[in-house]
This record gives sequence, C-alpha cells and structure tokens, in this order.
Amino acid sequence: MKHLPSIILASQSPRRKQLLESAEISFTIQVVPTEESFPSDMHPVDIPIHIAMQKAIVVHQLHQEPYPIVLAADTIVVIDQQILGKPKDANEAIQMLQLLSGRQHKVITGVVIMQGNKVVQFSDVTEVFFHELTNEQINFYVERYKPFDKAGSYAIQEWIGVVGIQKVVGDFYNVMGLPVSRVVQVLEQW
Amino acid sequence: MKHLPSIILASQSPRRKQLLESAEISFTIQVVPTEESFPSDMHPVDIPIHIAMQKAIVVHQLHQEPYPIVLAADTIVVIDQQILGKPKDANEAIQMLQLLSGRQHKVITGVVIMQGNKVVQFSDVTEVFFHELTNEQINFYVERYKPFDKAGSYAIQEWIGVVGIQKVVGDFYNVMGLPVSRVVQVLEQW
Repeated sequence: MKHLPSIILASQSPRRKQLLESAEISFTIQVVPTEESFPSDMHPVDIPIHIAMQKAIVVHQLHQEPYPIVLAADTIVVIDQQILGKPKDANEAIQMLQLLSGRQHKVITGVVIMQGNKVVQFSDVTEVFFHELTNEQINFYVERYKPFDKAGSYAIQEWIGVVGIQKVVGDFYNVMGLPVSRVVQVLEQW
Repeated sequence: MKHLPSIILASQSPRRKQLLESAEISFTIQVVPTEESFPSDMHPVDIPIHIAMQKAIVVHQLHQEPYPIVLAADTIVVIDQQILGKPKDANEAIQMLQLLSGRQHKVITGVVIMQGNKVVQFSDVTEVFFHELTNEQINFYVERYKPFDKAGSYAIQEWIGVVGIQKVVGDFYNVMGLPVSRVVQVLEQW
C-alpha cells in the first residue's frame, strides 16, 4: 500500500479516531477548544467547513516549520433549513429525535486539511431517512445512550441507527463524522 | 422499550451476531450446515431467500412445540446479473474486487423468520458504489484482511469499505448481512 502521510487530528471525537484507525491512517490528536460560531446569514452547507477551519487554524498555529498536516472536521444535521447541533439536555434531544422521526434529513460534514499555506477544504452531504420512531423508542434511546455530544442527538452506529434508520444515500461514514474515503483521496495526492 | 421476543439465529456470521446485539435483540445461535444450493434459473433477487429458507428449516426442525422463533439470512452480491458469492481463494477475491472497482453493484440479503407454521420472508437490496480501486489497494486488502468468508470478497466495515466506498443507497446494515431495522419491525408485530 502507498504510504499515506501522518496527520494531526484536531478533534476529540471517538468516532473520527476510530474511522482513521479503520482507514489505517497514522495520526496523533491535538485539540484547542474553539467557539464553533458562524455568521447568522451563512448557508448551512458552508457552516461545518467554517467551524472546521477555525478548529484547524488554532491547532496549526501551535506548530512551526516544518508544519504538520492538520485535519479538522465538523458535522451538522439539517432538516427544513434548520440546523441541529448537539442537544443541551434530554428534553432537547427528545425534541430533535421527534423532528427527525419518519423524515429525511441531511448530515453535512465539513473537512479542512492544512499544512503551511496549503489548504484543502470540502464538505460531504449524506441523506438519512428515519422510520417513524415511537416516543417509547426515543425516550429509551435518550435515557440509555445519552446522545448529548452528537449533532442531531443520534449516532448512526448505535441502537437507534441500527433499529430506526430505513435508508441512507451517500457516504455512511460521513454520518459518523468523517467522509474518510475522500480524506484518503486528498492525502494520497498530498 | 417494548420487549422483543427472543430468537434463534441460524447463522455463524459474526457481523449478524454483532448487529442483533446492537439492536438489543436477545438470541442464541444454532446452525446446521446446509448446501446453499439454488435452481439455476432462479432470479437473483429470490436466491438469498431460498438459501435462508433452507438454513431456517433445518434449525427449526430440531425443535418441537412450543417452537422457538428462528431467524436465518443469506447475502449475495450481484453485478451485471452475475452473482458473487464467497471467493474460493485469493485469486478469485482479487478478480471479484477488480470487477467491483469503479462500479455500482447490488447487495441482496434474504431473511426468513419462522415459528411453527408461521413464516415471514423478505429481501432487502442496497446499492453500493465503489471508487476506482488500484491493484495495489486490492492486493493489500486481500492479503491483509483475507475476505474469504464474505460474499463479493469485501466487508463494508473493514478497511476497503472505509477507504474505497463512495456511496450507498439503502440500508447500510443490509450490506453487513442483515437489514436489522426491518427484522425489528417484523419482531415487534410477532
């Protein structure tokens, strides 16, 4: 196999870590807390790239020449032009899942890969279709799996994803938080 | 959560076992070796149900009243009307992956759920799109991951699935070997 360059992952997400491991990309993790803010008139599809850029820059700035390759990503859930981030409590998680039940939504992950003055950025969109979820299912999931660190209040690889998702259109791993195959294509050309 | 009935899984696939666990379905495993044969003029979409039915019947026959619920499944890969089963060696695995490279194919899982004279059967189709795979990638995967127990010579949750798959349309877990959310819907009504 062609040897891919080693990178710094500017994310603490255990899912992103697991995906890079599955792709056999060697990496270390370095994170600087950022605000995750964005202009209020920004188009949803641009928001995750904007946030990922902030995450990448603050980590990249910790380094000097020769600069490492820094990878940052941010994932949002969009339904009816409304952006669902991480829920602040169980009630908000329940409301989000009631909104997603029986409907299609989009999961958008923005990716920024940066080294010195070289920057590649892209976003990837996957459509996800939930079955009708009962309130019993939603309450059970929120109480048992506590999805408070997850955009849209769910993880596709957990119980609710296995039991409640009818169909996806696009990259499944993008829904988990990183469109890995596109990341690999960028790194292969790096 | 509504309590789903406990079942017997008539399959030794570690992926199906893992998916039932993720769905929190309680089960035991019981397998009787079967021939996995099918009539040569059978339409591809009917083949996995036919094989799953054979697997389910031989396990169900081991039991007496009150009969348990037996679940069996079989997964095939179809490209250009050609059915790809498990490869017999590394060369055949390499040939299958070369055939799948840069193309769309279908993964079909047939499911049979049986208890006494009550039988529910269905099949689920997911489209999978591979990026162009290099020979280097294919050789690396076959040598390192030895996908000899996998229809079509790949597992979507392994390296080649993470790095090489561009898009899926349908149920991701169906590609892993079991359309779990539809199984849950059947068991909820059982």
